[in-house]
Amino acid sequence: MKQGDLLYLGKAKSVYLTDKTDELLVVFRDDITAFDGQKKNVLAGKGGYNAKVTAYFYPLLEAAGIPTHFLAEVTPNSHLVRRLSMIPLEVIVRNRAAGSLVRNYGFTEGQPLSPPLIMMDLKDDSRHDPMVTDELILAMHLATAEELAEIKRLALAINAVLRENLTAKGLDLIDMKFEFGRDTTGMIRLGDEISMDSLRLWDHGAIGASLDKDVYRKELGDVMETYAAVAQRICGK
Amino acid sequence: MKQGDLLYLGKAKSVYLTDKTDELLVVFRDDITAFDGQKKNVLAGKGGYNAKVTAYFYPLLEAAGIPTHFLAEVTPNSHLVRRLSMIPLEVIVRNRAAGSLVRNYGFTEGQPLSPPLIMMDLKDDSRHDPMVTDELILAMHLATAEELAEIKRLALAINAVLRENLTAKGLDLIDMKFEFGRDTTGMIRLGDEISMDSLRLWDHGAIGASLDKDVYRKELGDVMETYAAVAQRICGK
Ligand SMILES: Nc1ncnc2c1ncn2[C@@H]1O[C@H](COP(=O)(O)OP(=O)(O)OP(=O)(O)O)[C@@H](O)[C@H]1O
Ligand SMILES: Nc1ncnc2c1ncn2[C@@H]1O[C@H](COP(=O)(O)OP(=O)(O)OP(=O)(O)O)[C@@H](O)[C@H]1O
Ligand SMILES: [Mg+2]
Ligand SMILES: [Mg+2]
Repeated sequence: MKQGDLLYLGKAKSVYLTDKTDELLVVFRDDITAFDGQKKNVLAGKGGYNAKVTAYFYPLLEAAGIPTHFLAEVTPNSHLVRRLSMIPLEVIVRNRAAGSLVRNYGFTEGQPLSPPLIMMDLKDDSRHDPMVTDELILAMHLATAEELAEIKRLALAINAVLRENLTAKGLDLIDMKFEFGRDTTGMIRLGDEISMDSLRLWDHGAIGASLDKDVYRKELGDVMETYAAVAQRICGK
Repeated sequence: MKQGDLLYLGKAKSVYLTDKTDELLVVFRDDITAFDGQKKNVLAGKGGYNAKVTAYFYPLLEAAGIPTHFLAEVTPNSHLVRRLSMIPLEVIVRNRAAGSLVRNYGFTEGQPLSPPLIMMDLKDDSRHDPMVTDELILAMHLATAEELAEIKRLALAINAVLRENLTAKGLDLIDMKFEFGRDTTGMIRLGDEISMDSLRLWDHGAIGASLDKDVYRKELGDVMETYAAVAQRICGK
């Protein structure tokens, strides 16, 4: 695999072309951002922890029949992935209420949501990622009705796999954010990452005992100690 | 019919009990408000124009098989209605893009939406009426899945009746807001009003040629002249 030109410089990852047109190299950088990029820092080692957790979960999901973009770890902080045509949605699954659900709709922090609650935001920082409904997604031609149903099915299936895995490790999976895309055959696959940046995890049984990017957002403690400890608890090494 | 105690003092209407437990008197006041009530005025005659247009449309909808709360005109600015247990949703149907759809999602002003786009906001001024998805409506127990389907079916049916009626009068129906509730048998009925306060109407063929409350919101001209002329065009008297 040969690292080619930079395709996309994200807020926390850099995406490079490779010598194969349908494969990309994703580099997890040490940048951490919050609040639409208004707060930013560099935390040495952060990229590696997120890469490690992602590399742990994606093969697990593939084994459970969920198509992902993941192909291989290349270095401790970079992955070879299938190139996807990304669907610009942040697909959120919530098992318990937190964050904007509490702020905007009056749910109680930690309130169980059964069935898990799927929400979708338009991935558009310039518009502050506004929430979208199924009808809006169709009107904006972001996905077909069939794709939308498949995205929801996959999102719930991924939540079930992650939740079971994390519960066994004493971690309560409160909510999470996924991104999906179409591969060259049009199949919907999970792209992006699953990490402390995209999961909301609480230490078992303790409301708001954050073990994820909320430690950074809300300045709840040492971010890198938390990321290191959680990566260790999840991956067991 | 005997007017009883005030049940609810809204921003533009007052709702009174009557001598029958399942009937209410709705009085259309001359108050006009915008921007969550931040802008307010009293415009003599306004309540009467909205009452007249509502009294024109609701029997038309009933004739088309759509259950409404409307029973009778009592005075030029008050109606006898069935008491409903209101569902706290603002149900919006859009035939063309305007307002928040342009501001928040990048649609072009006047862009046709086909099929008509249904959106729903939580009716809660203290939370600034945030948008809700089907999943949120179910999680908040605002309506059952069956009720939600019925509300959408009725909203589209009402749009079709109104649109045909208004088009024939040279009025382009851009979007509209409805409120629904359950009657004593649990049947979903259209409540509230259909008026210049709840319809977005443009003079035929002219993008943004507002003939509705936008004249007040955006200070586009004489509000009462507009309301009088539109009521006349709609009701033909
Ligand atoms: N398999 C893939 N093929 C193509 N693009 C991908 C794939 N997986 C992820 N991406 C995209 O790569 C980019 C990763 O960048 P990164 O996550 O750092 O930034 P961002 O998403 O723009 O910002 P943020 O995540 O902080 O909102 C995203 O735009 C993501 O949608
Ligand atoms: N048939 C009905 N039975 C019971 N309540 C009704 C019925 N129809 C309408 N209502 C309620 O009566 C009230 C009418 O008040 P009004 O429209 O002035 O105020 P508002 O809705 O609180 O404010 P705004 O419309 O400006 O947001 C609303 O709360 C509406 O939901
Ligand atoms: Mg990202
Ligand atoms: Mg009202």
